[in-house]
Amino acid sequence: MKPWRILAKRVLLERPPWLTVGEQDVELPDGTVLDGFNWISTRAFAIVVPVLGGDRTLLVRSFKLGVGAVSLSLPAGYLEDGEEPLAGAKRELLEETGHEATEWIALGRYVVDGNYGSGAMHAFIAKGARRVGEPNSGDHEEQELLTLPFSEAIAKLRAGEMAQLSTAAARGLAAIALREGR
Amino acid sequence: MKPWRILAKRVLLERPPWLTVGEQDVELPDGTVLDGFNWISTRAFAIVVPVLGGDRTLLVRSFKLGVGAVSLSLPAGYLEDGEEPLAGAKRELLEETGHEATEWIALGRYVVDGNYGSGAMHAFIAKGARRVGEPNSGDHEEQELLTLPFSEAIAKLRAGEMAQLSTAAARGLAAIALREGR
Repeated sequence: MKPWRILAKRVLLERPPWLTVGEQDVELPDGTVLDGFNWISTRAFAIVVPVLGGDRTLLVRSFKLGVGAVSLSLPAGYLEDGEEPLAGAKRELLEETGHEATEWIALGRYVVDGNYGSGAMHAFIAKGARRVGEPNSGDHEEQELLTLPFSEAIAKLRAGEMAQLSTAAARGLAAIALREGR
Repeated sequence: MKPWRILAKRVLLERPPWLTVGEQDVELPDGTVLDGFNWISTRAFAIVVPVLGGDRTLLVRSFKLGVGAVSLSLPAGYLEDGEEPLAGAKRELLEETGHEATEWIALGRYVVDGNYGSGAMHAFIAKGARRVGEPNSGDHEEQELLTLPFSEAIAKLRAGEMAQLSTAAARGLAAIALREGR
């Protein structure tokens, strides 16, 4: 199975440092040429599934503008320029929740949109997480930190209280990884 | 916890029927005003986790431009104008794989990006899936259909062969739902 060939790539909108949108002309393996296929470039982000003692985890409750409502999400945030995904995950867990962890398990890198790109998610499990300080995200976002059993977090996911794709994905990937062991 | 208030909303780029990008000025509950917060609107899509007899499932192997590589994904596609998510899921399963199913279980709606929006995923389990015809997606995409045990699909997910966030999320959500029953 052959890759598509990019014939030309143009920028249509730049919103540094957050977002660039463009279009590209591509040639398919059968020779078909598609003109003006859109692409989106956004910042990569790290997301963390914390595992605390007593089979508990952490969730953040906040208003999310993209959702248009208050919802529950896992600690997550954009990587800084040149920052390794694991370093970003550790930083976000500390900033958003005041927690550190003793063991980090990578759950992989996932492209947000198979057609447009739209950045990528790097997901991690943070085992042995424990509180070492106060949250200090520096964001304007008003947020509430919940510590709850994993079974309750899963129940909230299934009840539709986690409205973001990234949180659902990381939560599901962690459920698979933790069940099957390493 | 109060929602943010949208003070103004502007369109910056229109690519009908696929994509609109804009910015909005918002007021936070503490009175802070953020100007030019980006938003992205893309088409909602449905994605399907097929469950076949013998504890098998289906995956589609194809080149995805947003990934820039060949990867494995679940049957999925954009909803048509006015189409209900379940109807779109049934249509995509039939078009992409030639399969129908006897029982459909909704796994929820998830906003692709908590900051920008970027459309939404509607995920479903299709139980009792069986082949009723040939795939006929109408797309230009060269693709290969794989029928394989669930355990192998999970192994491929964990090996990094499913590069798209939507597939990882639906796969994880299905693993949770199928393990815990309805």
